[in-house]
Amino acid sequence: MAQPTKLPPLYVQIRADLMKAIDTGLLNPGDRAPSERELTQKYGVSRMTARHALSTLEAEGYLTRVPGSGTFVSQPKFEQKLNAVTSFTEEAQLHGMVPDTRILATAIVEADYRMAERMQVQAGTPIIQFQRLRMANGIPMALETSNLPLGRFPGLEGVNLANDSLYRILRERYNFKPAHATQSIEVMVAGTFEAGLLSIRSGAPLLLLERFTHGPENKLVEYVRSFYRGDRYRFFTELH
Amino acid sequence: MAQPTKLPPLYVQIRADLMKAIDTGLLNPGDRAPSERELTQKYGVSRMTARHALSTLEAEGYLTRVPGSGTFVSQPKFEQKLNAVTSFTEEAQLHGMVPDTRILATAIVEADYRMAERMQVQAGTPIIQFQRLRMANGIPMALETSNLPLGRFPGLEGVNLANDSLYRILRERYNFKPAHATQSIEVMVAGTFEAGLLSIRSGAPLLLLERFTHGPENKLVEYVRSFYRGDRYRFFTELH
Repeated sequence: MAQPTKLPPLYVQIRADLMKAIDTGLLNPGDRAPSERELTQKYGVSRMTARHALSTLEAEGYLTRVPGSGTFVSQPKFEQKLNAVTSFTEEAQLHGMVPDTRILATAIVEADYRMAERMQVQAGTPIIQFQRLRMANGIPMALETSNLPLGRFPGLEGVNLANDSLYRILRERYNFKPAHATQSIEVMVAGTFEAGLLSIRSGAPLLLLERFTHGPENKLVEYVRSFYRGDRYRFFTELH
Repeated sequence: MAQPTKLPPLYVQIRADLMKAIDTGLLNPGDRAPSERELTQKYGVSRMTARHALSTLEAEGYLTRVPGSGTFVSQPKFEQKLNAVTSFTEEAQLHGMVPDTRILATAIVEADYRMAERMQVQAGTPIIQFQRLRMANGIPMALETSNLPLGRFPGLEGVNLANDSLYRILRERYNFKPAHATQSIEVMVAGTFEAGLLSIRSGAPLLLLERFTHGPENKLVEYVRSFYRGDRYRFFTELH
């Protein structure tokens, strides 16, 4: 005689059905997922059970909830190495995408006390700032602000970074070779400024990557602050 | 004759005043920041200007908005190395905190097709899962799920990880030495399950750290999935 089958909780069934729909391409990235109400009707479950199923899939990364709009199948994430100082352009091309850079601002500012501390200079030291919006296949991906001491790189404010790499310029014009760098990565949320530029909602999570690059004699030469869209990026490292 | 002073935009002034209040300890981590309404009254600015000042400070990490509750001065973040396979216990002690671990579950499960792919085993292979809640000074910090092939570590389901390190046990009882690992880091949002355990709101951003650890002959021995609180962690790496 067959043993009675122990049924899994209903939210497990809903989760499995939705994952299958995603795997088989019945639901594609960007498609709207069934709402809580639709799930309660289809499965005859409580609103709480439907919510738990959607919440589980969201925590697993399969779905993305957009407040005030709905729940959608997540877009695939781009993978970027953390081990090496990589160029956005090269990484995008490596993933078969068309990279593009928009120069938002080139400015010379005086370091305030926070910037001075970070850049190991006196407050008031002139700092050149490049702010760039990085795009892949036309989609805004990252907002990058590079800060360099102008004294070390005279004339750098005149370069055009739209079609050139900052590191290539530093190497070829200023004979600069980076010696080592420290990177940190953490979650931030988009303010109105970042949200507008990255075409995401204000309050959406971002990955903030900060990099402090040093030259010979441990002198800081670049401090970069980059916001990457949390819904589109994954960073990885290799350990040996 | 004195030149007329060009005044910065008002939101810059509000931002500077709030940052000064944080720096001087007038506002401490966890304190409620002034509301938009309070700022409009104090500075005679529009609601939009007040919002932009708060939003800028939030994007810079100084403030944290809790939907439905208010905006608060951010807690300092713990820094954890990404370069090395570090122990939560050692890292916490290094930061002068009292670490604690709660074992949530120890289970033997059969690998489903997704787990099988990740762990490079056949679907149905028995996997031992340890789910641990990591705390520092009594505050829940991370939710960690380790998956190991039971066949490689017979009897492992009987160990007590409350007061011991999994890697010490693997080394001493099973003579296992990790050869290399791949780690990825990305943003996820807390589902109801993670939110409840980590004492955060559902939908709050988390850092998901996944680590694939290989032994000799490139055989996968551990797949770890750890959710770190986005409001409390910063990871860093050194590049040479």
